[in-house]
Parts: sequence; structure tokens; C-alpha cells
Amino acid sequence: MGRQVIIRELPKGELTAEHVSIQDAPTPEPGAGEVLVRTNLISIDAANRAWMQGATYREAVKAGDVMHGYIVGEVIASGDPAFKAGDLVEGEGHWAEEVICRAAFLQKLPDHRPVSHLVSVLGIAGKTAYHGLVGVGLPKPGETVVVSAAAGSVGIFVGQIAKALGCRAVGIAGGAEKCAWLTEELGFDAAIDYRGGNLFRELKVACPDGIDIYFDNVGGEILETVLFQMNIKGRVVCCGAVSQYNATAPSGPRNLPGLVVVKRLRMEGFIVMDFADQDAKAVADLSDWVKDGQIKVVEDIVEGLENAPAALVGLLAGANRGKRMVRVAPDPA
Amino acid sequence: MGRQVIIRELPKGELTAEHVSIQDAPTPEPGAGEVLVRTNLISIDAANRAWMQGATYREAVKAGDVMHGYIVGEVIASGDPAFKAGDLVEGEGHWAEEVICRAAFLQKLPDHRPVSHLVSVLGIAGKTAYHGLVGVGLPKPGETVVVSAAAGSVGIFVGQIAKALGCRAVGIAGGAEKCAWLTEELGFDAAIDYRGGNLFRELKVACPDGIDIYFDNVGGEILETVLFQMNIKGRVVCCGAVSQYNATAPSGPRNLPGLVVVKRLRMEGFIVMDFADQDAKAVADLSDWVKDGQIKVVEDIVEGLENAPAALVGLLAGANRGKRMVRVAPDPA
Repeated sequence: MGRQVIIRELPKGELTAEHVSIQDAPTPEPGAGEVLVRTNLISIDAANRAWMQGATYREAVKAGDVMHGYIVGEVIASGDPAFKAGDLVEGEGHWAEEVICRAAFLQKLPDHRPVSHLVSVLGIAGKTAYHGLVGVGLPKPGETVVVSAAAGSVGIFVGQIAKALGCRAVGIAGGAEKCAWLTEELGFDAAIDYRGGNLFRELKVACPDGIDIYFDNVGGEILETVLFQMNIKGRVVCCGAVSQYNATAPSGPRNLPGLVVVKRLRMEGFIVMDFADQDAKAVADLSDWVKDGQIKVVEDIVEGLENAPAALVGLLAGANRGKRMVRVAPDPA
Repeated sequence: MGRQVIIRELPKGELTAEHVSIQDAPTPEPGAGEVLVRTNLISIDAANRAWMQGATYREAVKAGDVMHGYIVGEVIASGDPAFKAGDLVEGEGHWAEEVICRAAFLQKLPDHRPVSHLVSVLGIAGKTAYHGLVGVGLPKPGETVVVSAAAGSVGIFVGQIAKALGCRAVGIAGGAEKCAWLTEELGFDAAIDYRGGNLFRELKVACPDGIDIYFDNVGGEILETVLFQMNIKGRVVCCGAVSQYNATAPSGPRNLPGLVVVKRLRMEGFIVMDFADQDAKAVADLSDWVKDGQIKVVEDIVEGLENAPAALVGLLAGANRGKRMVRVAPDPA
């Protein structure tokens, strides 16, 4: 028997504990092309909430479903020749202790401990930061890198990679406490609380030589404000537009595309899979920086499957620092 | 003695013949570091009007000034060792038959006839189209290229270069007549009148495989509409934002940066000087395409210095087809 989180009712407004229930279910048997996985970690992502609102790039989550999510776990039984019991794997799964996954949607992971690093610094968060900054931003030592959502899963690595590459790192985050943490704990040169109302002026002070690279996780007004201070030939790494996801009347930055022309900027979107051929280099560099202390791995691990719904609610309110995940079972030996 | 166009009064609204007067002036003598040029052609550019509104990237034009402009002409007398009588030159000058230019701001031109080609296809218009499309857009044969202001000085070359490179060329222009001309005379695969009110639907029809490259001269709503139909990994060549120059309340495309992220687009601004090291290749390719008939050189030449103000007024109203210039004197022998 294993526990699982069921969506009792789809949320209309805010997601709460009322919308889910925890149930026991018998251990399933994998069919052909399927794999039974014992979950160690569940990745908690803003996208989880979006799935409850309708079809996106994938099918919607419906009432009565076991909640969908990205998991890391150990293969218990396999109905597919590509996987065997004991393999550490990642892929699309469910919020459950025992999950049947389609083998086609699973990837094998290296035998790394702690397993959580395969979700954070050596996983999608770290790789997204690395490929976006290095592959799209093309930073040069001495340049100034600004990142929004700087205390988030990707942002903390963007700033620290920038420092490791000899750049000035400036974070934009919500709240004075997060900002102090970015500079004092993670080595950012400066951090600005966008809720303070003086983003333009504070950026001027924090970036006396202008901005060469802006790693944008938010879009909207923050993007507009940053654009005014970009240097000629600056680069905007477009990673997300979270400010617009819930906007009833989305508004584009009013200085686009004007400033792109005048300042000869490059704005470029990417997804982490575009740089799969550079993954080995990324993991090697990130591992080295972790070893020599240039990157601190901050993880926001919530213990216990039963706390997954609250972990998602908190993430949507900006409560996390670094990559948020839920530990369902301790690392395999 | 030579004639010149004086700004009597700066225009508040629309520029008219009332704001200028034509005067005779004695032939000036070049001092040290100066060159006396007999003007053959004056380039007519939207920027000329912007200079009357205040300082831009250069000083403003004031009441009482001889109107400033980009000219091509022949050196008559030189106070600088880099130039001698008979040289064909281009650079910052004035709307006048005889102009004193600072040698530092002049460039020598090759001995090409007609001289007008050095302003259009082999000059700034052709080079801007070439470098933007080839150097920024990176077109591959079979891709679909859309260009706005397609009947303008740069647009006519963008579409024809796209065809020469094996791409599908689709123009956006104002008016059915211009659109018919683009397809019938210049070989565009399709052209869309943005004033028709069905830009989105007509783009769908004209670009059945989506849009790979958008060469944007206008920004604003047209950019927003085109973005929805860009293909994954598409490129937006940001050359101008003319729709925004007179806007009282500029508005950004509401799908920016969202679609840049989702479609992994690259939007990049440039100026022609960024690609100076590729000029020789550009001129060689453009000359070849003109010779073998793949590029028709369309020039909009207004005869007579006295018609320069009306030529600028017409340009601002979109009356030109191809590069507009004023012929002040016939080509040197």
C-alpha cells in the first residue's frame, strides 16, 4: 500500500488543503512499457497550479486525479527493458509514494548523493540557470548581470554562476529579508526589493556601469524598468514572464521594441532542452563550483507527502528560497 | 553662388513649405580640416524631421540654420590632405548646392555610376537590408521572411534579398496599390495591406508554414500581430519602430516577452555600422544580384533642391516607393 494526493475538487481561486485528500492505494503492477517507481522527491513548480486551470502544453489535471508532478525515485519493478529495479530515475509522475510511470517519459539519473542535488543544482534549476546565462547571455568577466526572481530556484544559481564567471551580480526579489539573504549568504553584490517602489533608482545605484545581461524571469514592469538601463549590445535572457501569468489585462513593456533598436539589444528565449548537448559541461562546471564553495546549494525541502499541497500554496505566494521540493522518502542507500 | 534651403521657422505640427525659404549664398572657402562639396544627391529620411524636434543622437536643427542632411557629392576644394578635388564623397552636409563639410565626417565613395546606387542598393538602404537580414536574421533557404514598411527604402531590398537567398518573401505595406506593386514588380510572394484590417488572417494565408524571420521596421500592433505567427526559434530583426515615434501613449506588444519565452524567439536590434567588416561582401552580393536581375533597384528621385521640403513631407506621409532622394546636380562625368 502507498499514499497518494488526490484532487478532490479543482480550485476556482486560491488552492487550499480543502481541494485535496490523502488516500492509501494498493501497490500497482507495471504493465508492458511501464515502470513502478518509489518516489524520493517531488519537484514543486508554479506550473503544477497552471495544470489545474486547463490544458497547457500538456493535458489538464481533473478532479479525481492523483495530482501530477515531476518526481525523482527508485525503480521497484519494471515492465520495460530499458529500466531495472534499483535504477534512480526522474520524470513525469504523480504526488504518491508509489507511481506507475511510462518508461518513455523517464530518464535514468547518475548515482549522486544527495539525490536532491539532481533536482536543484545539477538538475533542471541549475541547468536552466547555466544554459540561460552562459549559452544565451554570453557573459564576459567584469560585466553586470541582473536577475529577477533572484531568490527562486533558478535565480539563486544565476547570481552565483555570474560571480563565479567574474561578473557583478545584482538580484531583484520581493522583500527586504530575501534581499539581505542574497547579499549576505549567497554573495550577490547587491539585491533590490522590487516592492520598495524605487526599482529604477536602486538599479542605478546597484549598476553604476549599466546592465549588460538581464536574466528575466518575470516580464512586465520590472522588464520595462530594467530595459532603460541596459547597455548598448546588452542581452536579455528570456526565461519566464511570471508577472503576466495571472494578469487579466497583460501589458507589454512600453519601451519594446524601441529600446531593442536604439541599444541594439538581443532578447532571446530558451528552454533547457535546447542546450542538451552542453549538459555534461554544465554539470561538470556546476559540480566544480559547488566543491570549491563558489556555489552554495540552497534547497527548500518540505518533509512529507502530506505537506505537498501546502508547499505548492506557499511557492505561489513566493515563500520559497531556492528550489522547493517535497521529500517523500529518504535517499536510497 | 549656390542655393540653399533655410529653416525659417521650426514646425510645431506638420512641416510645410511655409517653414523654409530658398536663398542664394556666396561659395564658401574651406578652412583647415574642411572640404567644399558640390552636392549631387540629398538623402531624404524620416530622421530629418526628428532633428527639428530637439536633440536626438545629434544636435537639433534650429530656426535660421541651413537644413542638415546626408549628401553625396564631388569635392571642389579641400582644406584636408585626405581629400582632393574630384573625389566622390558621402557624409553629413546640408540641403545646399555647395556645402562645407568637416573632413572627419566624410567618406570617399567608389567611382560608381549611377551615383544614386551608392545611396540606395549599394548604400545605407541596401546595406541595412543585407546586414539585418543576413547578419541578424540568419535565413535558410525555404524559410518564410516577413518585412514591414515593405515598399520603403530598406523593405524593398529585404524582400528581394530574401528571394535571392531562396526564402519566401511576404511584405506588409500601406495600401493595395503598393501591395500589388510589391508582388507584380518586385517578386514578393505575397503582400498585405495593413490598413485592410485583416492582418492576422491575411498573414495566416500568406505564411502557411508560419514565419521564421520578421524584419521589423514599425513595432507596435503590427509587431504584436506578427509575433503570434512566429515559428519556434524564429528571429525578429529589429530595425525600426516607426509606429511609435509619434505615439502620444506608446504601448508595447502585449505578448512580449511571453512569446519570446514560449517560442524561444530571438529579437535583436542592429545598426548598419555594426557590420562594417561585412560591407565588402554585402556590396559584392548586392552588385551580383542587381547584374543578374534578382534585385530591381527602385529609387524615388525628386528633381531639384527646391523640392526637397515637399519630398520630406511626402516621405513622412508614406508617399515614397524605395529610397527617396533629391537630385541637386547630375552625376559627375
